[in-house]
Amino acid sequence: MRWNLSPDDLPTAWFNVAPHLPAPLEPPLHPGTREPLGPEDLAPLFPVALIAQEVSAEPTIEIPGPVLDVLRLWRPTPLVRATRLEEALGTPARIYFKDESVSPAGSHKPNTAVPQAYYNKAEGVERLTTETGAGQWGSALAFASSLFGLECMVYMVRASYEQKPYRRMLMETWGARVLPSPVDDATHPGSLGSAISDAVRDAAGREDSHYSLGSVLNHVLLHQTIIGLEAKQQLELAGERLPDVVIGSCGGGSNLGGISLPFVPDAGVRLVAVEPESCPTLTAGRFDYDFGDTAGLTPLLPMYTLGHDFVPPPIHAGGLRYHGDSPIISSLVKAGRMEAIAYPQSKVFEAGVQFARTQGTVPAPETAHAIRAAIDEALAAKEQGEERVILFNYSGHGLLDLSAYDDYLHDRLMD
Amino acid sequence: MRWNLSPDDLPTAWFNVAPHLPAPLEPPLHPGTREPLGPEDLAPLFPVALIAQEVSAEPTIEIPGPVLDVLRLWRPTPLVRATRLEEALGTPARIYFKDESVSPAGSHKPNTAVPQAYYNKAEGVERLTTETGAGQWGSALAFASSLFGLECMVYMVRASYEQKPYRRMLMETWGARVLPSPVDDATHPGSLGSAISDAVRDAAGREDSHYSLGSVLNHVLLHQTIIGLEAKQQLELAGERLPDVVIGSCGGGSNLGGISLPFVPDAGVRLVAVEPESCPTLTAGRFDYDFGDTAGLTPLLPMYTLGHDFVPPPIHAGGLRYHGDSPIISSLVKAGRMEAIAYPQSKVFEAGVQFARTQGTVPAPETAHAIRAAIDEALAAKEQGEERVILFNYSGHGLLDLSAYDDYLHDRLMD
Repeated sequence: MRWNLSPDDLPTAWFNVAPHLPAPLEPPLHPGTREPLGPEDLAPLFPVALIAQEVSAEPTIEIPGPVLDVLRLWRPTPLVRATRLEEALGTPARIYFKDESVSPAGSHKPNTAVPQAYYNKAEGVERLTTETGAGQWGSALAFASSLFGLECMVYMVRASYEQKPYRRMLMETWGARVLPSPVDDATHPGSLGSAISDAVRDAAGREDSHYSLGSVLNHVLLHQTIIGLEAKQQLELAGERLPDVVIGSCGGGSNLGGISLPFVPDAGVRLVAVEPESCPTLTAGRFDYDFGDTAGLTPLLPMYTLGHDFVPPPIHAGGLRYHGDSPIISSLVKAGRMEAIAYPQSKVFEAGVQFARTQGTVPAPETAHAIRAAIDEALAAKEQGEERVILFNYSGHGLLDLSAYDDYLHDRLMD
Repeated sequence: MRWNLSPDDLPTAWFNVAPHLPAPLEPPLHPGTREPLGPEDLAPLFPVALIAQEVSAEPTIEIPGPVLDVLRLWRPTPLVRATRLEEALGTPARIYFKDESVSPAGSHKPNTAVPQAYYNKAEGVERLTTETGAGQWGSALAFASSLFGLECMVYMVRASYEQKPYRRMLMETWGARVLPSPVDDATHPGSLGSAISDAVRDAAGREDSHYSLGSVLNHVLLHQTIIGLEAKQQLELAGERLPDVVIGSCGGGSNLGGISLPFVPDAGVRLVAVEPESCPTLTAGRFDYDFGDTAGLTPLLPMYTLGHDFVPPPIHAGGLRYHGDSPIISSLVKAGRMEAIAYPQSKVFEAGVQFARTQGTVPAPETAHAIRAAIDEALAAKEQGEERVILFNYSGHGLLDLSAYDDYLHDRLMD
């Protein structure tokens, strides 16, 4: 069962969680002085509108018309009830998911790529630089840049660049330029942290260029709240009041924030972050100020971190291989408003295959983390004989990650 | 702009074009005797229900409930107006497309894979065999078999098996077994015709198995008419009466038949088949009885054909590399009710990239043929200052065909 909204029902404002946080966020610090950052420190990298959103205390922020026009190419996305999965599990729980895989780039990432491209274009920027690991974010920014007539330069973690040629080809089809990172060491497999360094260095050194980040920052999570806002409307159409639990996989926190932040004010709703055991930022990291990148070029953010020099093992959910986490998500976990759990990848792929063979679509490995947790919630509900309502974010499809399934199915996966 | 129908608005009967054809179809002939085929000749390969649909003269045929339940996982599919493409072309034409890429397998193929799996399951068949070239059909049958608990054995053209590992992995994720074809010559690159021979031979030799075909036959096109039936409802919602022209790419004829057959009775509506110049069945073939496969195991069908031993060049639109064509499509072209045009692949990929950079999604190379024709119709409308209404079938996405775009963008494509 699916609940579609009409393009006319698309939310016209984002939800700002700032007024609802248990405690105000600590400010980011300047990487050189370690003093609180001012807007002028960010101006070489970001447009004024995004810097304002980063610190806004307004409860909602209006979505510009040209952004809505592009989002309507695929939004509102469907809310789906996974009845075939429920039947296979024999659970009394009702499992709903928000299908973000229907975007042109195949994930939730365009929800922020589009407004970021728009605000940069509106301020006269001609070129955006960014990094990408698994390729979901780079694809999204390449897509958005193409639609707003911006040049797009993507630094792609070298290991992914070599192993995932389809992701590079997709970005190039939208007209982006893609280089393997680190650019100064062709023998290094790279990491998200070092690719951020490459992209920031490029943008900081050119008048015509800005930098664009696909997760972690407040404005990114703000743009993603359209997911949860739509889900609230659709759950009502489905005859539900509020979900008992909202689940999202968590790398930097953008898809999780997108679906869960609009539920923060709803006290009875449990919020759950799911991460890989091999990169356990929220479940085993420390809460501290840390850099967002390896080279220490970015501001210091207050967050759970494994240390900015942490190099996660090469698991298949590349989008979850990040040493840090969004300050908003970190603050919710620290305050106890959000739970965090971690899974090994074999359990995750088991869930991904079960989903594919019941509901039909193949999820991204990142998304399969959320599915694993949703299945375990549904099995717990069965155990306890409870009619639990579960909502998770189907953040992306796995069509460009099939080699990970191939490894799983042929016993080449390591935990 | 998009028009969604609710899952409750899904058509509950297929449209049978047989009563509306300009002339009755000539019967298929037995490959051995060359006498008209009886139902008993097909019983070793197909379930009774499908054999009955193959020769039915009823105007509509009811869709079974369990088939509707599965189709509702992604149907009704959206009707989209390509306003950004229209703007880029500066055309007064209104371009609509039916987005069949949203299915779990990424194309229109599951529309017939699901009922075929259902009818076989209902008759006690345990295992289906089939062939696949580009991989779209094999993926669809693997998906449908998974949902109905059938084993699925796919013979994949060896060249594709080696060049497109993601397609194999996708089928295996749904639990299918995939072998490169021809099975008896590991050095041969294979062809669709020889893979059909492998699959038919397998099914004919086993009690528990039937064979399944993804195009050409009447019952396949019947199942695909749900596309055109939905499009008619949606065009009305969009405020249009009838389209001036309906366009589909054509290999065996299933996506073209799906969108166009419900418009056959509407005399003013032009119907257009688009094929590759390198495999010009409708535009340069002869109308004659011919085999569907290389080995001559299948019945002889009355159709346009390039000869069953024709080996098309290795173009990227693998789904259009077939020597023959659906008897229904052939009959419409022969009678002048349908037009046929052919394009070289460079013109096709130019259209695919223009679509990706305006509308955002990357089309399958097969689908890009229809887009090329839609763009040329829109440019002709501009030339003539006409408000033409164009409808085409967006039969599938190109996410597993990105190496074709890579070749195009890096000048490695040959016409």
